Amino acid sequence: MTFKQKIIEVRESRWFSNLTTGIILFYAAALGFKTIDQVAEPFGWLFYSIDMFITIYFLIEIIIKLSAEERWQDFFKDGWNIFDFIIVVITLIPLENSSFAAIARLMRIFRVLRLLNARPELKKIIDMLIGAIPAIVDIVILMFIIFYIYAIVGNFFFEELESGLWKDFLTSMLTLFRVLTFEDWTDVMYEAMTLYSWAWAYFVSFVIIAAFVFFNLFVAVIIDEMQKINSEHTDEQLNREEEKIDLLLQKVSQMQDEIQELKKKRS
Amino acid sequence: MTFKQKIIEVRESRWFSNLTTGIILFYAAALGFKTIDQVAEPFGWLFYSIDMFITIYFLIEIIIKLSAEERWQDFFKDGWNIFDFIIVVITLIPLENSSFAAIARLMRIFRVLRLLNARPELKKIIDMLIGAIPAIVDIVILMFIIFYIYAIVGNFFFEELESGLWKDFLTSMLTLFRVLTFEDWTDVMYEAMTLYSWAWAYFVSFVIIAAFVFFNLFVAVIIDEMQKINSEHTDEQLNREEEKIDLLLQKVSQMQDEIQELKKKRS
Amino acid sequence: MTFKQKIIEVRESRWFSNLTTGIILFYAAALGFKTIDQVAEPFGWLFYSIDMFITIYFLIEIIIKLSAEERWQDFFKDGWNIFDFIIVVITLIPLENSSFAAIARLMRIFRVLRLLNARPELKKIIDMLIGAIPAIVDIVILMFIIFYIYAIVGNFFFEELESGLWKDFLTSMLTLFRVLTFEDWTDVMYEAMTLYSWAWAYFVSFVIIAAFVFFNLFVAVIIDEMQKINSEHTDEQLNREEEKIDLLLQKVSQMQDEIQELKKKRS
Amino acid sequence: MTFKQKIIEVRESRWFSNLTTGIILFYAAALGFKTIDQVAEPFGWLFYSIDMFITIYFLIEIIIKLSAEERWQDFFKDGWNIFDFIIVVITLIPLENSSFAAIARLMRIFRVLRLLNARPELKKIIDMLIGAIPAIVDIVILMFIIFYIYAIVGNFFFEELESGLWKDFLTSMLTLFRVLTFEDWTDVMYEAMTLYSWAWAYFVSFVIIAAFVFFNLFVAVIIDEMQKINSEHTDEQLNREEEKIDLLLQKVSQMQDEIQELKKKRS
Repeated sequence: MTFKQKIIEVRESRWFSNLTTGIILFYAAALGFKTIDQVAEPFGWLFYSIDMFITIYFLIEIIIKLSAEERWQDFFKDGWNIFDFIIVVITLIPLENSSFAAIARLMRIFRVLRLLNARPELKKIIDMLIGAIPAIVDIVILMFIIFYIYAIVGNFFFEELESGLWKDFLTSMLTLFRVLTFEDWTDVMYEAMTLYSWAWAYFVSFVIIAAFVFFNLFVAVIIDEMQKINSEHTDEQLNREEEKIDLLLQKVSQMQDEIQELKKKRS
Repeated sequence: MTFKQKIIEVRESRWFSNLTTGIILFYAAALGFKTIDQVAEPFGWLFYSIDMFITIYFLIEIIIKLSAEERWQDFFKDGWNIFDFIIVVITLIPLENSSFAAIARLMRIFRVLRLLNARPELKKIIDMLIGAIPAIVDIVILMFIIFYIYAIVGNFFFEELESGLWKDFLTSMLTLFRVLTFEDWTDVMYEAMTLYSWAWAYFVSFVIIAAFVFFNLFVAVIIDEMQKINSEHTDEQLNREEEKIDLLLQKVSQMQDEIQELKKKRS
Repeated sequence: MTFKQKIIEVRESRWFSNLTTGIILFYAAALGFKTIDQVAEPFGWLFYSIDMFITIYFLIEIIIKLSAEERWQDFFKDGWNIFDFIIVVITLIPLENSSFAAIARLMRIFRVLRLLNARPELKKIIDMLIGAIPAIVDIVILMFIIFYIYAIVGNFFFEELESGLWKDFLTSMLTLFRVLTFEDWTDVMYEAMTLYSWAWAYFVSFVIIAAFVFFNLFVAVIIDEMQKINSEHTDEQLNREEEKIDLLLQKVSQMQDEIQELKKKRS
Repeated sequence: MTFKQKIIEVRESRWFSNLTTGIILFYAAALGFKTIDQVAEPFGWLFYSIDMFITIYFLIEIIIKLSAEERWQDFFKDGWNIFDFIIVVITLIPLENSSFAAIARLMRIFRVLRLLNARPELKKIIDMLIGAIPAIVDIVILMFIIFYIYAIVGNFFFEELESGLWKDFLTSMLTLFRVLTFEDWTDVMYEAMTLYSWAWAYFVSFVIIAAFVFFNLFVAVIIDEMQKINSEHTDEQLNREEEKIDLLLQKVSQMQDEIQELKKKRS
């Protein structure tokens, strides 16, 4: 067994991917503890060591994966590999003492995203979620049009309100998003009603229309998924049955012809 | 190619509808920016020009669409065209300096609704949403009866409360709508409980009944949609199968007759 | 046509039920307007007349329905009729000047419930809602057990809190119901955390468990409904197909026997 | 009938399980009333007696169940029995006067959980709920990753906020859970926006992503359940049909052979 074969074997082995998963989880926990001030200060050197260790481990891991490929360029043919590579490389850049130190530190948490690549079930869910987008894209556009019109109207009428919730278009959009989540929406309404007593109609109509559209969005997605399954599910069996019935029909037709012949011969 | 043919070609062309969509989106963005005071003031002339340009573009568009029809009256046979026409005409009326100036300005945002006509997918969703209404109309009536009775009872008992949330029938309806969205409903309840300690029963029963009805409304719509699909879906294949089985039955019966004949002849 | 036949004709006629529906709606609107003080005072005599009129109309209606039956006792065989009768009779009792005047006035709103009987679609929905209860009764019991245990635990630990939200078992139940609707539940939690820092676990676990059970309740009802439809739906067609296949099998078996006979005769 | 047979008969009898259910419910009600101070004090002796009675009843019940088994060890083969046994034994330990008295008293409420074992429908729901877990475990992991990343980012940027909602990693997680339930999430957002004006993007993106994932979790569970039913449901019938068609095919083939033979003989 050559050295390359050994490397390939390591890459394919279950213990290697489990080790990576374990190290990522350990690192995630460390990042969590680091936010507690009482822990972070006395054990600063420990967190620094952990960070060092992770950086080196990730580097080794990437090198193993790179050298296990026939040609190292093949590594970059998989989107998830590119994703991994970028995360590893970016966190390698020594920015600790530069003005980007804070951002560099923050970038580290994206290392946790490597879990998505390590666990195939998660990759599948991500794909499922991405697959659900086309079914909702037009309802999202419709929702946006509803938001847009209500935001302009809201800004037009309620701009002067003290709370500043309608002070410009974007703030109005944010306020409407808040109303959609029912978060203290009556406070917003009661304030608007001090200016115009009919303001309740604006809010109630928005809540009903947006909720109705949202509600149907939900139903649409369920129905869409259902259709996919249905067509996968019984169809296969139904198709097999139909083929058999076709075969039957063919055989019976042949028999009929043969009996016909029999009769002719007789007469 | 005559002039009319050219106009028809323009109307049917993809670039024309895309151009209109693009201009509407650009206009929508402009309306949005106009609400930010720092932008609106120095660039007032720009927004005025954009408005002018849109008005002219919409006018030209309508004229093209009108003259592309065999008889211009045909244009009004499509509900969406009438909708477009009304929006264009209303925003043409010169009200800038009249007392209706504000309303005229507001009317402009409805131009964004023309997006619905420009994008066929959105038209389809609107139709789907309208199609969902019959399935829920009776549950809405039932919901209204529940609201009605609770509003009268609430007004009867809690009218004197300081917050004025139950001061008359319509306000009580609004308060109940708020309770339905769970928006600070306990504040309303605790206030009512200062007057009558049993008030919690009124609120908890309303929340449970309204939520239970609403919940079933949801289920009813999903079931309704599911039934529509199911009947479309496998039915076609099942029908085809059934036809084939019928044909088989017929053929086998014929064969049986023929064999019967064979036997008779023999004996 | 005898007098009785005429009465039966009136009872069956569409205009009679529509008239009743219309009068109920008109009455409902009147009750609504009566709650607005500015309207109620000057037009007191009008509301009194309307009330008088409705009372008389309902009385006449019941008499028509009673006398249209072959034997007047038959009228009480339908649960909805009993419901109507009770509402009409109770609102007949002259309590205006007694100490029960307020309650008598309130009872009137239940007249609006007669709409349920007037509109068959609503009767159907009520039946559907009642039909949905068995599917959820056990999940409701489970929910109750969860509430019960959390209420006792909550009362045990948080009884002394100033807000009094946990002062006894029933109040704790109400507080938990509030937490279930997410209504300012963090306020309740933060108060409890001043006493015990682990209180967040109590609340987060309750929210997750209760929501998870509730969520499955929802799914259970949908699945239950779905099953009902499915068994109604394609089954009929599948059964018909299966019968035909059975017939085919029988016929083919007969043919086989006959051919066997043919062969025997030959040899 | 031996003594053992009598005991087995008692254990199997409906009245015995109903008696246990009744006693548990009665005990649950007593525990509830005990929390009301006005009731608890004068009737302290009554609650003590009830407690005594329940302890003895449960002991007798367990002894009956134990001695009804062929070998008493068999009793512990059922998980629910072990569950019951632990509850009974733990509440037997005399801790009234020790420092664990409070905890001992609290343990009693878990006796109510014995209802789960007494009512088979509840056991079925518990099984259903447990069965729903695998369908959601990966979405829960994904949700956790989302929470994790947002918590670290939130803690990084908003740590200094006065409310202390982001003061360390765990508190940030709790705050995000609160945002997920839409509980006063705008208050959290507006506070964060005083520090960074772009904070709205953090919150809006979290709400949309978390809600979108949660939403799909819901759909996934429904679809999963649906698939289970579908495969149970029509499949049986379809399989039966297919078998019959196979039988038909076989018979028709045989017939064809026989006719072939007939023809050969003739010629």
